[in-house]
Amino acid sequence: MPAAISIPPDLLPVQETLGRALQRVETEFDRALRSDLPPLQELVRHIETYRGKMLRPVLVILSGLAAHPRAGSSSFNQSLDDALAPAHLSIAAVCEMIHMATLVHDDVLDDADARRGGATVNRLRGNEMAVILGDYLFSAAYRLCSSLDSQAAALLIGQTGMTLCAGELLQLHHRDNFSIDQPTYYEIVRRKTASLIATACRLGAWQSGAAPETCQRFEDFGLRLGVAFQIQDDLLDLEGDRSLVGKPLHRDVELGKLTLPVIHHLGATEAIERGRTLAMLSDQSAFDAHAAGDLVARLRSTGSIDFARAKARELVEQAKHALEPMPASAPKRLLMLMADQVVSRAF
Amino acid sequence: MPAAISIPPDLLPVQETLGRALQRVETEFDRALRSDLPPLQELVRHIETYRGKMLRPVLVILSGLAAHPRAGSSSFNQSLDDALAPAHLSIAAVCEMIHMATLVHDDVLDDADARRGGATVNRLRGNEMAVILGDYLFSAAYRLCSSLDSQAAALLIGQTGMTLCAGELLQLHHRDNFSIDQPTYYEIVRRKTASLIATACRLGAWQSGAAPETCQRFEDFGLRLGVAFQIQDDLLDLEGDRSLVGKPLHRDVELGKLTLPVIHHLGATEAIERGRTLAMLSDQSAFDAHAAGDLVARLRSTGSIDFARAKARELVEQAKHALEPMPASAPKRLLMLMADQVVSRAF
Repeated sequence: MPAAISIPPDLLPVQETLGRALQRVETEFDRALRSDLPPLQELVRHIETYRGKMLRPVLVILSGLAAHPRAGSSSFNQSLDDALAPAHLSIAAVCEMIHMATLVHDDVLDDADARRGGATVNRLRGNEMAVILGDYLFSAAYRLCSSLDSQAAALLIGQTGMTLCAGELLQLHHRDNFSIDQPTYYEIVRRKTASLIATACRLGAWQSGAAPETCQRFEDFGLRLGVAFQIQDDLLDLEGDRSLVGKPLHRDVELGKLTLPVIHHLGATEAIERGRTLAMLSDQSAFDAHAAGDLVARLRSTGSIDFARAKARELVEQAKHALEPMPASAPKRLLMLMADQVVSRAF
Repeated sequence: MPAAISIPPDLLPVQETLGRALQRVETEFDRALRSDLPPLQELVRHIETYRGKMLRPVLVILSGLAAHPRAGSSSFNQSLDDALAPAHLSIAAVCEMIHMATLVHDDVLDDADARRGGATVNRLRGNEMAVILGDYLFSAAYRLCSSLDSQAAALLIGQTGMTLCAGELLQLHHRDNFSIDQPTYYEIVRRKTASLIATACRLGAWQSGAAPETCQRFEDFGLRLGVAFQIQDDLLDLEGDRSLVGKPLHRDVELGKLTLPVIHHLGATEAIERGRTLAMLSDQSAFDAHAAGDLVARLRSTGSIDFARAKARELVEQAKHALEPMPASAPKRLLMLMADQVVSRAF
């Protein structure tokens, strides 16, 4: 993601530090998963092709830099690499592994064919391989964070894993429930998507020795950013560019997952129109590109696309506000740019 | 399992300590999984009905007692409860949770309908719920072991999780491979079944402050016992009593999993007979009760059932031998009785 932002020249040093750190995260990721069994190693190599935005590692690293005790000092920009401990990189790799595990299992749950432009593990190798590979990723993540000096990170990662699963389950429980309200939507999204993003930000700050209230600020930042991220995902699923998104569009409708624009629309429209939208949503097998265009037009007619977009922007502003008390620094400015990018991204 | 053994009167105190400890393990298990979400809590309650032999918790507790520094003293039998730390019970609950997670995901992999006499989660609630529930169990297990004073246990549990997955994957990789040899069989079983049993024994001893060589002895005990346990499972799948086993028989053949008696038979028989057996194994849809009886007769004709049974007994003797240097104590004697029971059990 950072590469897609046009970076002011004074942020180039922090971007370079981030790039070097991400390379070390990739190395740690690959080392933690390495297996002596050729068929397992082959699956692990496939996982490496899933590597996308690396949002969670980026957030661990930038939060670690922005929360550093020296972040406000004038010389900080000259010694950014020194501010990152090896544990920052391990935590970053752990967050990415947990995320990958949920992606691999999500693709089983959703019976998905494509992910980041390539075939999913379940499609290529069957659901069984995908279930095992996800379990392997979870185990490797927990093993790696148990190797850190303190087990506080492992405890929070375990807790976050439980929260993620609870969010997935709540979403599955409400599949094809066309009467869910906005609080239920936010409950699902906070648990399923935002919890790990919040944990990435908190642990980055925590590993830099930040005070509890600072850790809490970074967690709040991540929680709001994570919800905004999911709303943007909802919007891209509705009207994104298939070639940029890297996976089929309109999966949410096909899978009976209500998204924020649809929930808003159903609450804002008249009974007859609501009935028509519901009929379209429930006849998932007939949901083709034409129906998708029709749905988007309906959502626009009630301002529901704009509503969701505004909500995502509002959450990004709240996220940025949570970090306001932090001293001005290049990493903080890059975090702010990234936060804006979350709701302007096309992939 | 201990209830099925006829216990000599002088072992009653250790059996009572074990019973009390297992009750506390169940409480810890339930507490660690408790969720504020009703649909998740409902799934968790279903998991409680899976509770069977509690083999891994039993091994953590008895290993903890048998490896205790005071285990050889004459007064030890009077203060057995004091020898168990709360961490022993947490570790026991963790091992059971990891085991349950693999059971729930195994049932998805195997498309199984019944488990311990009841319906499986995947059959009742769909594969999606079962995938999520397994992930939740893994996460809760890692969270609980990250709450212990030392993270050595969490590190080993994470490592064991990776080993279990590697074993599952190797088994899946060799599904319908009718030419696997005994070393490959043992490789799969050591990783898939014996690794967690070995870890349960090692961690029980470790938590009692046992020296590294003692921890290694308990690990060796568990590893051999675990392989014997799996061979007995293979035998019960072939010729067990459906009502005692609690799940359908002959699943191994239906799922294309070669077991020790079958591998031995294929290596011991003449080409024509081998061809007939292979034809029977590959036509899995036609594998009914009649075919199963025919298969067992074939296996008997080459002494393959007896071979596997003898191998399991040999492994149990090796397991018991590993603990020989440990001082005589009631918990050690109960462990020895349990080891014998592993290969004489009917369920």
